[in-house]
Amino acid sequence: MKLNERGLLIVLSGPSGVGKGTVRKALFQLPNHDLVYSVSMTTRPPRAGEVDGVDYYFVSKKEFLDRIENDGFLEWAEFVGNYYGTPKDKVEEQLMEGKEVVLEIEVEGALQVREIMKDAVFIFLVPPGKKALYDRLNVRGTESETIVLERMQKAESEFSLAHKYDYIVVNDEVNNAADRIMAIIRAEHAKTERTIHNYMKMIGE
Amino acid sequence: MKLNERGLLIVLSGPSGVGKGTVRKALFQLPNHDLVYSVSMTTRPPRAGEVDGVDYYFVSKKEFLDRIENDGFLEWAEFVGNYYGTPKDKVEEQLMEGKEVVLEIEVEGALQVREIMKDAVFIFLVPPGKKALYDRLNVRGTESETIVLERMQKAESEFSLAHKYDYIVVNDEVNNAADRIMAIIRAEHAKTERTIHNYMKMIGE
Repeated sequence: MKLNERGLLIVLSGPSGVGKGTVRKALFQLPNHDLVYSVSMTTRPPRAGEVDGVDYYFVSKKEFLDRIENDGFLEWAEFVGNYYGTPKDKVEEQLMEGKEVVLEIEVEGALQVREIMKDAVFIFLVPPGKKALYDRLNVRGTESETIVLERMQKAESEFSLAHKYDYIVVNDEVNNAADRIMAIIRAEHAKTERTIHNYMKMIGE
Repeated sequence: MKLNERGLLIVLSGPSGVGKGTVRKALFQLPNHDLVYSVSMTTRPPRAGEVDGVDYYFVSKKEFLDRIENDGFLEWAEFVGNYYGTPKDKVEEQLMEGKEVVLEIEVEGALQVREIMKDAVFIFLVPPGKKALYDRLNVRGTESETIVLERMQKAESEFSLAHKYDYIVVNDEVNNAADRIMAIIRAEHAKTERTIHNYMKMIGE
């Protein structure tokens, strides 16, 4: 029996290279959940096989800028000439339907969301040590030392923002991390501030 | 990998008759946990088979009153001429060892603990409706109508204290309730306020 029927907005973030995408995939593979992945909006043209409303909402630059103007995004950013953002109304629709909307985003974007969605759940995914992350950033591709160094510096500044999150989850092992996040989702649904309203209705009957 | 090594004090409470004991037993039967049950101290003489330090800590009235004097209890109460209480030092020892100490107590006692243990986790177990509880109170034994009525009134006043707890867990089905409580324990361990200290140490290395 669910005392809180509204879904949760789960903001999954953490330093670059920590493995947010992998953990998110493992999370979605767990049984018995109402998780959905938030679909971003972009001005980038669709690539072969990409479906509007599934991979992205593809919109014109004008549409995107109008939406920014009308506070229509939870967060947005420009990246090599294209805009990317999380449309507020789409997320709200899914929350109303009782879906847990998972937003897997960079640290900077997450902190934008914090300002707007006070009742979202902010999870900071961290590596089991700095060295683990640096090793990963290094082996990721064939990038030059300069790029690896830049990434490390970025991660360094992101590391220091953990205190702005509700939870810190160690990605020591992907399935462990996913299990911890699922426990957080279940626990958040039982929080008094989310349940007291329906509880009062229930015992009033 | 556990960023928070200290155990949690889990205060499990709720209106009389909600099934705290049954849920607690189901909780302890779940796999992979460090749960321990807090042992109370009492001035009541041991019954046949009861072991000191296991069922209760059996002490003299003088010892008990001295302990009250020295703020040695998380909560205590007198009940038909005997004293019962939760010894603070014993709980603290177990928390330091990384055990999750479960305190299954009445609503009034729980609110005493709240004052002393700011970082404890307060869970309010509720029935899936008032009727369910009243039915239970009625069928429990062969008590007179007056006693059942008294219990109902007590439950009624306890119902209204849910907002003082961190979580509200519906006891619709014992195993569901136990699972929810386990999720809460896991989530609480990941809370930033409990993990940030060790996280900072970890990334400082």
